[in-house]
Amino acid sequence: MFDTTLAAAGERDWDTGAVEEPVRIATVGCGNYARNVSIPAMAEGAYATPAVVVSGDPDTRASLADEFGVTALDYDAYAAGAATDEYDAVYVATPNRLHLPHAETAADHGKHVICEKPLEATVDRADRLVAACDAADVRLMTAYRMQTDPVVRRVREFVADGGIGDLQRAAGDFTFPVLGGSAGPDQWRLDRRLAGGGALYDVGVYPLNTARFVAGDDPTAVSATVRSPDPAFDEVDQHVDFRVEFGGEDGWVGNFSASFSGHPNTSLELLGSDGRVAVRSAFEPGADREVTVETPDGTLTVAGAGADETVAEFDYFAHAVATDAPIEPDGADGLVGVRTLAAVQEASASGGRVEL
Amino acid sequence: MFDTTLAAAGERDWDTGAVEEPVRIATVGCGNYARNVSIPAMAEGAYATPAVVVSGDPDTRASLADEFGVTALDYDAYAAGAATDEYDAVYVATPNRLHLPHAETAADHGKHVICEKPLEATVDRADRLVAACDAADVRLMTAYRMQTDPVVRRVREFVADGGIGDLQRAAGDFTFPVLGGSAGPDQWRLDRRLAGGGALYDVGVYPLNTARFVAGDDPTAVSATVRSPDPAFDEVDQHVDFRVEFGGEDGWVGNFSASFSGHPNTSLELLGSDGRVAVRSAFEPGADREVTVETPDGTLTVAGAGADETVAEFDYFAHAVATDAPIEPDGADGLVGVRTLAAVQEASASGGRVEL
Repeated sequence: MFDTTLAAAGERDWDTGAVEEPVRIATVGCGNYARNVSIPAMAEGAYATPAVVVSGDPDTRASLADEFGVTALDYDAYAAGAATDEYDAVYVATPNRLHLPHAETAADHGKHVICEKPLEATVDRADRLVAACDAADVRLMTAYRMQTDPVVRRVREFVADGGIGDLQRAAGDFTFPVLGGSAGPDQWRLDRRLAGGGALYDVGVYPLNTARFVAGDDPTAVSATVRSPDPAFDEVDQHVDFRVEFGGEDGWVGNFSASFSGHPNTSLELLGSDGRVAVRSAFEPGADREVTVETPDGTLTVAGAGADETVAEFDYFAHAVATDAPIEPDGADGLVGVRTLAAVQEASASGGRVEL
Repeated sequence: MFDTTLAAAGERDWDTGAVEEPVRIATVGCGNYARNVSIPAMAEGAYATPAVVVSGDPDTRASLADEFGVTALDYDAYAAGAATDEYDAVYVATPNRLHLPHAETAADHGKHVICEKPLEATVDRADRLVAACDAADVRLMTAYRMQTDPVVRRVREFVADGGIGDLQRAAGDFTFPVLGGSAGPDQWRLDRRLAGGGALYDVGVYPLNTARFVAGDDPTAVSATVRSPDPAFDEVDQHVDFRVEFGGEDGWVGNFSASFSGHPNTSLELLGSDGRVAVRSAFEPGADREVTVETPDGTLTVAGAGADETVAEFDYFAHAVATDAPIEPDGADGLVGVRTLAAVQEASASGGRVEL
C-alpha cells in the first residue's frame, strides 16, 4: 500500500548530503514568480543560495539586493561577464523566447544552467540552447518543479513498483486564470512571439511532463483542440485539450488540458490495470496535495501531503552540480517537452494526429 | 451553494404523481443486467411493473416467472403477438444489433418502447428503430439511466443555474472489466457485429451522454484513440479515449474515456469559469455517489448521495407514458448518441477530426 509517512514527510531520495559549499545562483529575469517563489526557495534551501540577480529594472535590483543581500546587475553587465566570480550557476527565468540568449551567455561564462519551462519558445531555439550548454560542458536542468515534488516522486515510485498494475491512462488539468493576478493583459505570457504559446506552454506543460516523469515514457503522437473565445487571448491559446499517446496498442494515453481562465484547478490522475492514483492541488506551487490511492486492498486518502517542491528543485539542481549526479529533467528531457508542445500546436491547427 | 438535502434524498423533479395504474412492461432479452438490475427495479418502482418476460432460454423463463409472477414467452411467441393484452410497453434489453427487430415488433403491437443504450449497433439501424416507433405513434425512450439519477439531475440544475459559471470542459471515464464477471470472453459485448463496438458502445456512452444531458448540448466534432492490446478484444475496442467538441470557440470540450479492462472506475468532472463539480462512482449502478462542489464560496463534499437511478428510470418512463409527459432521452436523443459513437470510430480509424 501507499506509504503515507513518505508522502507526508517530503522524500528527497536523490539527496546524498555530499554538498560542502552551497551553489551560488544568479537569477536572470526577476518577474513575480522568480521574486516571490524561486529566489526565496533558493534562500530557504540547503544547497543553493541566491547570489546575483539580473534585472532591467533599477527598483527591482535595489529591492532584491536589499532583501536577499545579493549583487544586482543589469542585462548588459550580465552579458559582459560582471561578477562571474560571485555565482556558479544561472537560473533563467525570463520570457520563454529570451531563454536562449541568456543560457548562451551563461554557457559562455562557464556557468551551469537551470532554465524555466518550457526550454524555449520554438523547437529550433530549444535545440540551440541545449547545444550551447553541451558545447560549453555545463550542466543544464529544465526547471520542471514537479519532478522534485516529494509527493510526485513517491507516486512515481509507487507506480514503478506496480502499485496500480500497468498504467492504462492519465488525466490532468491545470487551469490558471492568468489575468486574475497583478499582471493584466499586457504581459509576455499573452505574446505569442515571446511565449511560444499560451495556456499550453505556460501550464499545460505540468500535466504533460509530470505524467511523462511518473511513467518514464515519452510521447509518440498527439491531437489537440484549442479555443480562445476571449479577445485578450487573440495571440495564444486560452483553452487547450490535448490527447497524448505514449506507445502503441500496449501503451497508454494521456488526456490533458490547460486554461488561462476559469476556476483555478490542478489535478493529476493515473488509471491502471489494478488501481488508481489521483492527486488534487497537484501542480499548485508549495501547496498541500491531496492524494487518493485505490487498489484492490482498499482506498487511502492522504490530505495535507507534500513539502515545498521549489526548495527541493533548487537543492536538487545544486546537489547535482556539486556532486556531478545525473539530472533527470535535463536538456534532452526539456527538448522532448518543447517538441511535444509544437506537435500539439500543429495538431490543433490541422485537426489531425501528429506523430513524434 | 449545492443543496445537499436534494442530492441525498433523491430528487424526482419530473414526478407529478398522476399515474393511476402501473405501466406493465414486457422485458425482451433477459441477460444478467435485465434480470439482476432492471426487472427488480420495475418491481420496486411505483409506476412500472414487470408483466412479461421474453427469453430464448426455458430455465430463464421458468425462474423469472416464478420470482416475479410474470408471463414468460419465447421470441416466436413475442413476435406472433402472444399476451399483448398483458403489457403496455416493451423494454428491449437484447444485444445492441437486435434492438431494431424487437422494437419494430413492439411498435407493430402498438406498444411503447424503452430501449437499452446504445439504440442500435449502427446509425442506419438506429434511424430505422426511431422511424418505426414514430410511424406507429408509440413513445420511445433511450434507456440512459443516468438521466434519471437524482444526483445527476441535481448537478444539471446546479450547472444550469450558473453554479460553476460557464462550462469550460468536462472529463469522464468508465472502466468496466467486462471479463471479470460471470460472463467470459464468449459474450456478445465482444462481438463487433452484435455490439457495434466495445468499451465505447457499452460504457463510453455514460460519460458522453451524461455530460450531454447535464450541459444540454450536442457534439459538433470528435477525435479518438483506440487501443486493444488483449487478443480477447480483437473485434472491439478495449480502451478508447475520445475528445468531443460541443460548439466552437465559445463552446466546451469533453475528454472522455472507457475501458473493458482495468481497475473499475466511473467518474465525471465539470470545470467551469467559476467552479467545479466532480462525481465519483458516477455511473456505477445503484451506487452511493460522492459529489464535490468547488466554488469561490468554498468546497463541499457530499458522500453517500443518491438513490437507485434504475428504479427512477423505469418510473420516469412509465410516468411519461401514463401522463403523456415529454421524454428527454427520447429517440432523437439516442440517435445523436449513436451518430457520435460512429463518428468516434471513424475518427479513431482515420486519426483525424470528424465533424457531426
